[in-house]
Amino acid sequence: MDVQSLPLIDHHCHGLVREDLDRAGFEGRLTEGDGGGPLGGTLFDSHIGLAVRRWCAPVLGLPAHAPPDDYLERRADLGADEVNRRLLRAAGLEALCVDTGVSGPLLSPAELGEAANARAHEVVRLEQVAEQVAAAGGTAVGFADAFRARLDERARDAVGFKSIAAYRTGLALPGDRPDEAEVTAAAGRLLGSAGPPRVADETLHAFLVWCAAEYGRPIQFHVGYGDNDLRLDRADPLLLTDLLRALASTGAPVMLLHNYPFHREAGYLAQVFPNVFVDVSLAVHSVGRRAGAVICEALELVPFGKFLYASDAYLLPELYHLSAVLFRCALGGLLDDGVADGSWTADDAARIARLITTENARRVYRLPAPADS
Amino acid sequence: MDVQSLPLIDHHCHGLVREDLDRAGFEGRLTEGDGGGPLGGTLFDSHIGLAVRRWCAPVLGLPAHAPPDDYLERRADLGADEVNRRLLRAAGLEALCVDTGVSGPLLSPAELGEAANARAHEVVRLEQVAEQVAAAGGTAVGFADAFRARLDERARDAVGFKSIAAYRTGLALPGDRPDEAEVTAAAGRLLGSAGPPRVADETLHAFLVWCAAEYGRPIQFHVGYGDNDLRLDRADPLLLTDLLRALASTGAPVMLLHNYPFHREAGYLAQVFPNVFVDVSLAVHSVGRRAGAVICEALELVPFGKFLYASDAYLLPELYHLSAVLFRCALGGLLDDGVADGSWTADDAARIARLITTENARRVYRLPAPADS
Amino acid sequence: MDVQSLPLIDHHCHGLVREDLDRAGFEGRLTEGDGGGPLGGTLFDSHIGLAVRRWCAPVLGLPAHAPPDDYLERRADLGADEVNRRLLRAAGLEALCVDTGVSGPLLSPAELGEAANARAHEVVRLEQVAEQVAAAGGTAVGFADAFRARLDERARDAVGFKSIAAYRTGLALPGDRPDEAEVTAAAGRLLGSAGPPRVADETLHAFLVWCAAEYGRPIQFHVGYGDNDLRLDRADPLLLTDLLRALASTGAPVMLLHNYPFHREAGYLAQVFPNVFVDVSLAVHSVGRRAGAVICEALELVPFGKFLYASDAYLLPELYHLSAVLFRCALGGLLDDGVADGSWTADDAARIARLITTENARRVYRLPAPADS
Repeated sequence: MDVQSLPLIDHHCHGLVREDLDRAGFEGRLTEGDGGGPLGGTLFDSHIGLAVRRWCAPVLGLPAHAPPDDYLERRADLGADEVNRRLLRAAGLEALCVDTGVSGPLLSPAELGEAANARAHEVVRLEQVAEQVAAAGGTAVGFADAFRARLDERARDAVGFKSIAAYRTGLALPGDRPDEAEVTAAAGRLLGSAGPPRVADETLHAFLVWCAAEYGRPIQFHVGYGDNDLRLDRADPLLLTDLLRALASTGAPVMLLHNYPFHREAGYLAQVFPNVFVDVSLAVHSVGRRAGAVICEALELVPFGKFLYASDAYLLPELYHLSAVLFRCALGGLLDDGVADGSWTADDAARIARLITTENARRVYRLPAPADS
Repeated sequence: MDVQSLPLIDHHCHGLVREDLDRAGFEGRLTEGDGGGPLGGTLFDSHIGLAVRRWCAPVLGLPAHAPPDDYLERRADLGADEVNRRLLRAAGLEALCVDTGVSGPLLSPAELGEAANARAHEVVRLEQVAEQVAAAGGTAVGFADAFRARLDERARDAVGFKSIAAYRTGLALPGDRPDEAEVTAAAGRLLGSAGPPRVADETLHAFLVWCAAEYGRPIQFHVGYGDNDLRLDRADPLLLTDLLRALASTGAPVMLLHNYPFHREAGYLAQVFPNVFVDVSLAVHSVGRRAGAVICEALELVPFGKFLYASDAYLLPELYHLSAVLFRCALGGLLDDGVADGSWTADDAARIARLITTENARRVYRLPAPADS
Repeated sequence: MDVQSLPLIDHHCHGLVREDLDRAGFEGRLTEGDGGGPLGGTLFDSHIGLAVRRWCAPVLGLPAHAPPDDYLERRADLGADEVNRRLLRAAGLEALCVDTGVSGPLLSPAELGEAANARAHEVVRLEQVAEQVAAAGGTAVGFADAFRARLDERARDAVGFKSIAAYRTGLALPGDRPDEAEVTAAAGRLLGSAGPPRVADETLHAFLVWCAAEYGRPIQFHVGYGDNDLRLDRADPLLLTDLLRALASTGAPVMLLHNYPFHREAGYLAQVFPNVFVDVSLAVHSVGRRAGAVICEALELVPFGKFLYASDAYLLPELYHLSAVLFRCALGGLLDDGVADGSWTADDAARIARLITTENARRVYRLPAPADS
């Protein structure tokens, strides 16, 4: 199964830094946490650090397994632009769906697309829109309409939406659609709080999601594994069960992102709810050579038409390449093993590979086929 | 280790449909959810769908991996009776313990036993009995006695009992036995509710279980993975801990069914509580070629005298055969691997295989040995 | 990768019994539960039981896989002292960090060290110190100072501290440091309760931990898998998130012990918090030949500088040896596989092996290097 030659659609990713990084700056962006430190040692001694040396060093013209300092020196010599370009190209992407909700001087979707030689699409972060509306002032009573109007503008060029409720309140969102009075009350709390507006309220997160659902486009949820500004136990996808059941009637697909270590739970949801789709982004590059194990677990229950590729790459272009290469190896290995032990035919394997690498994303996000470009 | 030649006792299974099924009808019964759908594609592109084509097609006289439409055409040509008979026979069962708690025009235990050429026993669903008692009228004060009287009748021919508290309230049942006043109050709520009586009350579920425990026969609990009428997070077996500890004194074995994705948690409970037994039914056929991985995880802590085979087959006879064939492959593979790497001897492997395939179920359910038949 | 020849530092272990054991006595100590029993069969038919026969029998001069009764007879012939000495030596330890918080006529750290031919260090159990202070009388107002004074004495010879909050209240401890009034109130409840004082109060557990953190030495938490006097769902390490975040500023390392089946969750915490370290003790010997699978999962996210070896051996010397041999096999297998598939170099593997077997423990517990002895 030559998965290595298949393009990928990366349905959830982020912008990259423009500047050169020293070793501390690089290690600090390699994961979303602060794992190393004086007592814990270097992050190069971890699955992801070793994977960078193995898979990214050759893309920068170094031998595989080049030492960390050599790698960083080479990175500095090439410069951030060239490093971004080389590693993004190496990922072999057909398209990217970029979450633009993190502010900062990062590469824009268009710049990412150009560097990757791929189409780039935007995914709008719902909480960012709501916070911009709140920051612009207005009344609690007018908030819902103001949000809808602003979302309508942002939705024009967007292929989907994203909720980061997991980071704010956790995923135990109500199953019932909040009514007008509840939204107004929640908006009043948001507008009345000191400092820049910050959505962290179950009612508001749910309201944003229901507004987005009217577009019938995918709504992404951060689920599971992320940085240390998270209570991981409140990011279990099962906490979303009631909302997922309620959203099924809207026809809007729900994309559960990341999911690790709750990827089997996410797989159950994808099996039992028609509107639920899953990926194991972020985990794939973070666990290095264990990507295959994680993907095999995730796919136990998920219909293969509901599993997507994503990197969740952020800041470092290495993460685009690592996710892509590790995902292809893992998926190819799984499909080949199944052919070898007689579980399915080579034709089945080829069809499933096409679904997971690109076709599912094209269908759910209504992306153009490459021949249309 | 020739596990393939060993009979199995299926200690948890259900009736089958009598009618022929078209493709939608078949796919809709292949899992307990609604996973496919317009955006998600066919369930034949999933582990269970591929496993049907591999393992069931030959039993119906088709080549392995026959296309879905060929499979369904052949199924229709043979007719439901013949398909049921062939696939049940192929499962190689010594006995079945059939949960009769789902109403509908399904094959009865006796019919299943005849089709499977195996002994069939009944497991009584506690909530069904309670709901029948409530539907017959009566007072809240008289409910407990009326339930006990009705259970006594139903218990005459039953080898065990089953609780579906997981589907109704979740498994966070009280550890203390409910007292008379609590049961009466709960019965009042049940009798006073509109519509057909539906037990969904921690006190009542616990009461039913304590009544069943007086028979000293196995009490099954639905745990973990099931259909979408479930909050999977409330079906974690650890929520039963206090009740399991309290039930230990009764001598009634407790059977934790399914458990996926909480099968390691269930294994812990089986290791630390003398009255707890586990299986990974439903998961085994649902995950297809990953059955071995799931069984290996489940068995990490469980004493091998406390692990049982079950299919949780329901409606489709394919599920009987798939579970059986996948379980045998997985168990055989695990035991062979252990012999190959020196973890245990071939004699150990043979003894463990006999325990898990039949002897544990015979001992716990007090079933006759096949020589007695 | 010759991990078999590397010494291990066992950073969490316990004393051993001094007396000879019959079969029931031995099986009863093989796990921390009551898993076998009349219906469940012998614990020799479980992963850990089979591992004893395979790995420990030869250390006692029997062939591998000797039958259980032969093994126990040989054990009785040699006597507990000799059995303890042989199995502890076979573990190949450089040092032990012994939790002395369980009272009873067990081998002391010094005796363990002598039997193992290794340095032995003490880890002080915080709740034991608090309960001793409470048992000595005094006032609620004076409790905090009395505890600090007593801890200061005990800390003189200790390399670290341990909290068993998981067994008492679960791990949902407050993130904010309890203030004086809260501690006094909690001390009042402790002193006012009937019977011997027993700390089981979130405020008190947190207070003890914050006192210990002032020493800057490792603070161990029981997490996950243990005996049946536990609600395993309340021993999920994610419940500690807020406290871990708050403790980061103190500089005291936090050691999450055991973690199974939440070892991936623990790995996430070690990746995102600079002060968090993890092991999979107790699980390693309990799961027998599955140790490699568990360790591979645990290491997916953990930086390799933050993963330690421990046995959690308790009462039976077999557990010291089993943990050591299974851990070395598993770690060696993982590292060799990574070399074989090109994930890292042999030099990388050797460096990681040294980190995990000894160097991490030496650095975090500030233990002397063996050359200093």
